[in-house]
Amino acid sequence: MSISFSIHATDKRARTGILKTAHGDIRTPAFMPVGTAATVKAMHPEQVAATGADILLGNTYHLMLRPTAERIARLGGLHKFMNWDKPILTDSGGFQVMSLAGLRKLTEHAVTFQSHIDGSRHELSPERSMEIQHLLGSTITMALDECTPFPATEAVAEASMEMSMRWAQRSRNAFIQREGFALFGIVQGGIYEPLRLRSAAALTQIGFDGYAVGGLAVGEGQEEMFRVLDFTTPALPDDKPRYLMGVGKPADILGAVERGIDMFDCVIPTRSGRNARAYTSMGEINLRNARHMDDPRPLDPHSGSHTCQHYSRAYLHHLFKADEMLGPMLLTLHNLHYYQELMAGIRDAIANNRLESHAASLREGWAKGDLAAL
Amino acid sequence: MSISFSIHATDKRARTGILKTAHGDIRTPAFMPVGTAATVKAMHPEQVAATGADILLGNTYHLMLRPTAERIARLGGLHKFMNWDKPILTDSGGFQVMSLAGLRKLTEHAVTFQSHIDGSRHELSPERSMEIQHLLGSTITMALDECTPFPATEAVAEASMEMSMRWAQRSRNAFIQREGFALFGIVQGGIYEPLRLRSAAALTQIGFDGYAVGGLAVGEGQEEMFRVLDFTTPALPDDKPRYLMGVGKPADILGAVERGIDMFDCVIPTRSGRNARAYTSMGEINLRNARHMDDPRPLDPHSGSHTCQHYSRAYLHHLFKADEMLGPMLLTLHNLHYYQELMAGIRDAIANNRLESHAASLREGWAKGDLAAL
Repeated sequence: MSISFSIHATDKRARTGILKTAHGDIRTPAFMPVGTAATVKAMHPEQVAATGADILLGNTYHLMLRPTAERIARLGGLHKFMNWDKPILTDSGGFQVMSLAGLRKLTEHAVTFQSHIDGSRHELSPERSMEIQHLLGSTITMALDECTPFPATEAVAEASMEMSMRWAQRSRNAFIQREGFALFGIVQGGIYEPLRLRSAAALTQIGFDGYAVGGLAVGEGQEEMFRVLDFTTPALPDDKPRYLMGVGKPADILGAVERGIDMFDCVIPTRSGRNARAYTSMGEINLRNARHMDDPRPLDPHSGSHTCQHYSRAYLHHLFKADEMLGPMLLTLHNLHYYQELMAGIRDAIANNRLESHAASLREGWAKGDLAAL
Repeated sequence: MSISFSIHATDKRARTGILKTAHGDIRTPAFMPVGTAATVKAMHPEQVAATGADILLGNTYHLMLRPTAERIARLGGLHKFMNWDKPILTDSGGFQVMSLAGLRKLTEHAVTFQSHIDGSRHELSPERSMEIQHLLGSTITMALDECTPFPATEAVAEASMEMSMRWAQRSRNAFIQREGFALFGIVQGGIYEPLRLRSAAALTQIGFDGYAVGGLAVGEGQEEMFRVLDFTTPALPDDKPRYLMGVGKPADILGAVERGIDMFDCVIPTRSGRNARAYTSMGEINLRNARHMDDPRPLDPHSGSHTCQHYSRAYLHHLFKADEMLGPMLLTLHNLHYYQELMAGIRDAIANNRLESHAASLREGWAKGDLAAL
């Protein structure tokens, strides 16, 4: 028994449930904050948990280079190292390595690359990726795949997907199954329906504890992403969690939940928070804008975030103008809280069979924008 | 009645007591973390309070330029603006303005200067400094003085001190007294005993709620600073708090407490924390040093800091190598905690008439250093 997934309610294609793991329960649909280098940037881990996050994501590529998976294992694993005892999902390292244009070489066996930190040479194969994620102690391990570039011709996407399916089998073979730990496969195939269906079938044949949709949110746009999800998620097993990798903005997440996705990760709330951009029930707000200079109101009157409870827009504006660390700290905290409030609201709406009206209300707020609320 | 100061115990020249203000009690000897631009860098204010800090310091110079005292007043005052409801001491702005060599002009009336932010012209007089600190809502206001340069001849130090005493009287005249709020005067006179004694007498004659020793920690060295304190503190009223401005490292603070000082402020714990330098019972530790790379131990086995309770040296080293914000955040938190532990230990030792043995034990630990503990 790896992990158990129970769906408590469905609303059209959307589902809500619980994923039980060795490190605790994950309420789905779930958003995973990104903790690239064993830290969610600008956040204490207790604060990440307090926003309502049940799980976070770590990046194999960054951790294998620094401080290295072996060192983290000697120090007791990633959970202990970073003071986070809830579930952690690690990616396979593939996505970042594939992005190292010119610094990497891909063969059927593995991808070899040079570190962006010190130029040292490394090899990442499905077997090595499984070993690294095992050393880290990941709750959910991702199979190694090639993230097909966008745009790609159908022939290129097909060859890439086929290799990813062979790597998925090698990942499955190399993964050491433990109680409460899981291995997820990744559907590829670009924007092409026949390829996505073949990929989903191949992964289902191998058998995974969850199924990710990869190769999206790479520039194709929301409409095209939704079109691909429309034919991809129905091809995945109903009784396993589905994870849309690297997505996204609130509206992307909402649309993907409506299309049957259960899990998400994205750097947007954390990266935007460091860059003075807030996510709210009234859409995005740029705190550097001078119109906030004298504004005593909280960022979002509908948010229960610690930032909204204790700080004015004027103060947040001041912190960013003065280049004070507390600006990124408070805005990252708010954004992660907003994302978790968004997921909690979505879960509740699905449980009460009213996702359609809830989604309409969310979209109305985002469209209205902040200026209308002044 | 401004504020009340009660001394609960003395041990030779050292004292411990409580300073009662409109915003709460300050246990003395007290260390005030520095919150220059309405934030203690890298810290949430709740975390500053949790380290045991009863009061923090704000910088008039920075706040008057950005976001401006008038704006902070419109937004409800500095306490509300920065989400800190305990006492705040603000400096007069003089120290930073005097440091603007070439950009400022000093007359008997006031100092005029150009903003380091946008080059705009400003004037700071004793009356304007009082007005700004009133607008901020400071619990403890500092008189405007000229921080005499070091080194200075006795004639230069005398003229500077004399003007500071005239400014002290103007500060006193302009200060609006409110229940639970205080105005402190500042002793000047460089390293010259006759000048320090005359300055102390002049301030006592005017009458303040507390007396600061200014113009030290400007390059004269610890031995010389202690020599000046040896003749300065006995010249100050016994029943009022004494504040040594801008000091210092733990050993400086300890020696100054032994010489009758009750309050301190310094950027060292926060600035050092951002630069990977930790203060511990075994002295200073540089977390960038490669010897910490595999070290599973906490920074300081004798510290109860949140950082020491939850993180290894290896993790802290990793955060600084990866340039992650959590490094400065955790090390600032530790350093401020260490400073507050230091003050609590000193207060307890004075209360139990055993400061001498406690001081010896502290100095032994600092001298032993970290390597000896490996």
